[in-house]
Amino acid sequence: MCRWLAYSGTPLLLDTILYKPAHSLIDQSLHSRLGVETTNGDGFGVGWYPQESIDTPALLRDVGPAWNNRNLREIADHVRSPLFFAHIRASTGTAVQQSNCHPFRYGRWMWMHNGGITDFHLVRRDLTLQVDPELYSDIEGTTDSETMFYLALTLGLEQDPPGAVARMVGLVERSGREHGIEFPLQMTIAVTDGERLWAFRYSTQGASRSLFYSTRVDTLRKLHPDVAFLREVSDETHLIVSEPLGDLPGAWNEVPESSYGVVHAGATELCPFAPEPV
Amino acid sequence: MCRWLAYSGTPLLLDTILYKPAHSLIDQSLHSRLGVETTNGDGFGVGWYPQESIDTPALLRDVGPAWNNRNLREIADHVRSPLFFAHIRASTGTAVQQSNCHPFRYGRWMWMHNGGITDFHLVRRDLTLQVDPELYSDIEGTTDSETMFYLALTLGLEQDPPGAVARMVGLVERSGREHGIEFPLQMTIAVTDGERLWAFRYSTQGASRSLFYSTRVDTLRKLHPDVAFLREVSDETHLIVSEPLGDLPGAWNEVPESSYGVVHAGATELCPFAPEPV
Amino acid sequence: MCRWLAYSGTPLLLDTILYKPAHSLIDQSLHSRLGVETTNGDGFGVGWYPQESIDTPALLRDVGPAWNNRNLREIADHVRSPLFFAHIRASTGTAVQQSNCHPFRYGRWMWMHNGGITDFHLVRRDLTLQVDPELYSDIEGTTDSETMFYLALTLGLEQDPPGAVARMVGLVERSGREHGIEFPLQMTIAVTDGERLWAFRYSTQGASRSLFYSTRVDTLRKLHPDVAFLREVSDETHLIVSEPLGDLPGAWNEVPESSYGVVHAGATELCPFAPEPV
Amino acid sequence: MCRWLAYSGTPLLLDTILYKPAHSLIDQSLHSRLGVETTNGDGFGVGWYPQESIDTPALLRDVGPAWNNRNLREIADHVRSPLFFAHIRASTGTAVQQSNCHPFRYGRWMWMHNGGITDFHLVRRDLTLQVDPELYSDIEGTTDSETMFYLALTLGLEQDPPGAVARMVGLVERSGREHGIEFPLQMTIAVTDGERLWAFRYSTQGASRSLFYSTRVDTLRKLHPDVAFLREVSDETHLIVSEPLGDLPGAWNEVPESSYGVVHAGATELCPFAPEPV
Repeated sequence: MCRWLAYSGTPLLLDTILYKPAHSLIDQSLHSRLGVETTNGDGFGVGWYPQESIDTPALLRDVGPAWNNRNLREIADHVRSPLFFAHIRASTGTAVQQSNCHPFRYGRWMWMHNGGITDFHLVRRDLTLQVDPELYSDIEGTTDSETMFYLALTLGLEQDPPGAVARMVGLVERSGREHGIEFPLQMTIAVTDGERLWAFRYSTQGASRSLFYSTRVDTLRKLHPDVAFLREVSDETHLIVSEPLGDLPGAWNEVPESSYGVVHAGATELCPFAPEPV
Repeated sequence: MCRWLAYSGTPLLLDTILYKPAHSLIDQSLHSRLGVETTNGDGFGVGWYPQESIDTPALLRDVGPAWNNRNLREIADHVRSPLFFAHIRASTGTAVQQSNCHPFRYGRWMWMHNGGITDFHLVRRDLTLQVDPELYSDIEGTTDSETMFYLALTLGLEQDPPGAVARMVGLVERSGREHGIEFPLQMTIAVTDGERLWAFRYSTQGASRSLFYSTRVDTLRKLHPDVAFLREVSDETHLIVSEPLGDLPGAWNEVPESSYGVVHAGATELCPFAPEPV
Repeated sequence: MCRWLAYSGTPLLLDTILYKPAHSLIDQSLHSRLGVETTNGDGFGVGWYPQESIDTPALLRDVGPAWNNRNLREIADHVRSPLFFAHIRASTGTAVQQSNCHPFRYGRWMWMHNGGITDFHLVRRDLTLQVDPELYSDIEGTTDSETMFYLALTLGLEQDPPGAVARMVGLVERSGREHGIEFPLQMTIAVTDGERLWAFRYSTQGASRSLFYSTRVDTLRKLHPDVAFLREVSDETHLIVSEPLGDLPGAWNEVPESSYGVVHAGATELCPFAPEPV
Repeated sequence: MCRWLAYSGTPLLLDTILYKPAHSLIDQSLHSRLGVETTNGDGFGVGWYPQESIDTPALLRDVGPAWNNRNLREIADHVRSPLFFAHIRASTGTAVQQSNCHPFRYGRWMWMHNGGITDFHLVRRDLTLQVDPELYSDIEGTTDSETMFYLALTLGLEQDPPGAVARMVGLVERSGREHGIEFPLQMTIAVTDGERLWAFRYSTQGASRSLFYSTRVDTLRKLHPDVAFLREVSDETHLIVSEPLGDLPGAWNEVPESSYGVVHAGATELCPFAPEPV
């Protein structure tokens, strides 16, 4: 399994979020508390939208652990972004290679995932066949996560992200059941087009991987008037994380089972999520 | 495009063949003379059958260039084998990752390729669908070469290698033509089960990548009584290479267009090759 | 810090020792129990003497974690050796690069280390200056461990390993104290020339990293007549490890503080160790 | 040997200079025309000063070839900088590892080099001993190039770059001669503090590696009124390169033997260079 974080808000040096917190994502790469694996050292990725207008987000991905990667350290120390994803991987069997590192990108879109399609080797062919033939050759890696992304793209992600993810989940669950798999899917997912950000928490079994969202900055600022960081970021700043980055009381809230959140123009909304049969 | 060599004969330190010749495969990784690219630095692989009985060949593959890889140098200096493959890659676009490095392995079988399926992105989906669903999830990379291997396995490689390769080529050419591709395939291929070794040279256009086989050792020994190497290897020793490893007069013979050779128990045979419609 | 193992005895597939035990070194790379760090993912190395006569041991070293390295898996599955070292690294600050991975080699000699020279950056220059100028340019990396190896070589390792290591420790402690360091050294070390194997456990503070040696095979065989592995290896088989590879009662014995063991022609000896002032 | 480029001027996407020109540095990594080696595939690096004020330049360095590195491609497509260095390496024997990749950095300073200290293994110890003991432990790699950087820092680089480089060269030549080396040094060097940029061309033999500087933009604009790129960059834009990036007539001028150029606030100066005995 894996750990990830998604940031949207005041443009920050990536370092502020990736390395500085007490239980940062980099710390989680060695000592995850809530993940299935304590070590997440099978590759990493960070994807960020530059402050100036460029069509696509930038990706830095590599196959070693995040904790000792110097290029990641450099980017974190020198790049500012208003919207970025970061992901650390613990492979569940597929190859440790750059093309299997999250986030995945398609045009302006980025996608990352924690969890897994149960017995993916059994359903991989059926699922891949459902990918739009026009998109098929853009698949570069061999993960369930990237297949889910391309299925969501096939099923309308660019027009209706929550609907497309619901249909993708419906499809994965149907394929799994056709192969006799009781609980076909386990997922937390983040997806963005550079303006809006969606995060999903769901599993067939109803026992999903951990996911948390940050409390509103204005509320936190009143609770913790001494925390300098909270004065540096705007009220429109939001974080969604696999596990809390620190122990600040009141800062983190669990995303409920079978739900998704959306961040847009600084506002947030939390909605129920259910697979859509296809 | 790529360069490769296949060795069968007296057990040798890999170094003897990989590094020592004047125009060794390692030299070809920097300065190929007959290849489409002069530099072949997008990964490499070596696969060898140990002298003692072990079920599968060993693979050492990595994504950097062969010429500066220290682990390859170590293996070459310390491992002896009676049958080994080596390959240096020049990517034609697919990702530079270990799972795209040749040789590919399936049980006791190894496969490597130079050339390419024209416009592979157009036919990749159609071809992949033809792979036996039981084998589908064993595909780890994204190359045309590995797809060709799994198609050949689907079409009977383990029972009838020349026939299976002929059917694979028939399939690739049919798919290509269905997509309006004039010359769908360009290939030299080596395949072995650890006992027998086959090498194919073919292209739709009839202008195939270079391929050479070594002259019989007993003949060469008479021609060059002073060459120490020729006294160290048995008459059953054979090499098949993308380009000659040196300039020894009389040592190398071009494999004719549209043909294949087989090495078995030290004997060799050269046969015509034609695609088989499927 | 790091974890390591040294094997001497019946030629075995490396897999038998590296992967198969319940708490194998590969398991320790993710979940060390007795190490300073639970994760040892900053590179690895294995060095082995081939069964046939070759002058030097072979090294396979790489910068990623051992647990997901496919080339290590391949070598373990296909190479047999009567004497091999394996090491997994948790960097204490020096760069994660192949030249910093253990074991280190000089001619027929191999060396690996767990522990550290305290405040190495303060004493590195002084210590490096003590290396024989003839050897200086053979230093390839930047670790304290490799510096200790070259100091030991300078101080007579090839003639008298225990004496040379004692003098090296004396030198490191003197340098440390000159820089006001209270406890300059922490070490477990394995060194071999391909025939004999020495293992040292020492720290200035008298609180050394864990080190264990295996019980005599004939004794273990009587204790555990059902353990198949014990019937496959000769009485001359010995293991020295940073932490026990499994829970077989009676199999593992702690190397005492400030002592070293030697394995030669299957016989073993345990001796006290003390630094030698230089 | 190696190839490099240094850019100073209108903030540009790195892609504009690194990939777009017909004979870009990326093309030179495969097909250098004027270098000692045609292939420069033993690692690469790019170092850039962000547009916003940050104390140090950012570095992206890796051990594979530049031509297939996806992270370099990403940075080039998404990062703008007013001052950046890029370097592709062809190792002359020292290890291919990140810490040996140029540019090297010390605080705000960056340094890169093409050429070599002749028989560096013979003089490495003597030269390293001349490095300020305070700086010694910052040396991370094993190249002659980094040693030259730390010698220059020791000899006053931060106060007087041309003087410090002259003294460094004097020291290298003296050490070389003491070891009986006829032509101890071959170099082109670029160094910057983020505001000023110096480039040196020198060799003991007076037969230095190629180095070129770009013609003034206002002059080029008159010569080539149709070249869009020239209208997008300011008159203060300058490039110094190992070999011309394209064939635009009048665009490139050879830096004379034994001279150096300095770019500061858009103005340039060309001065003679001579080693200074130390």
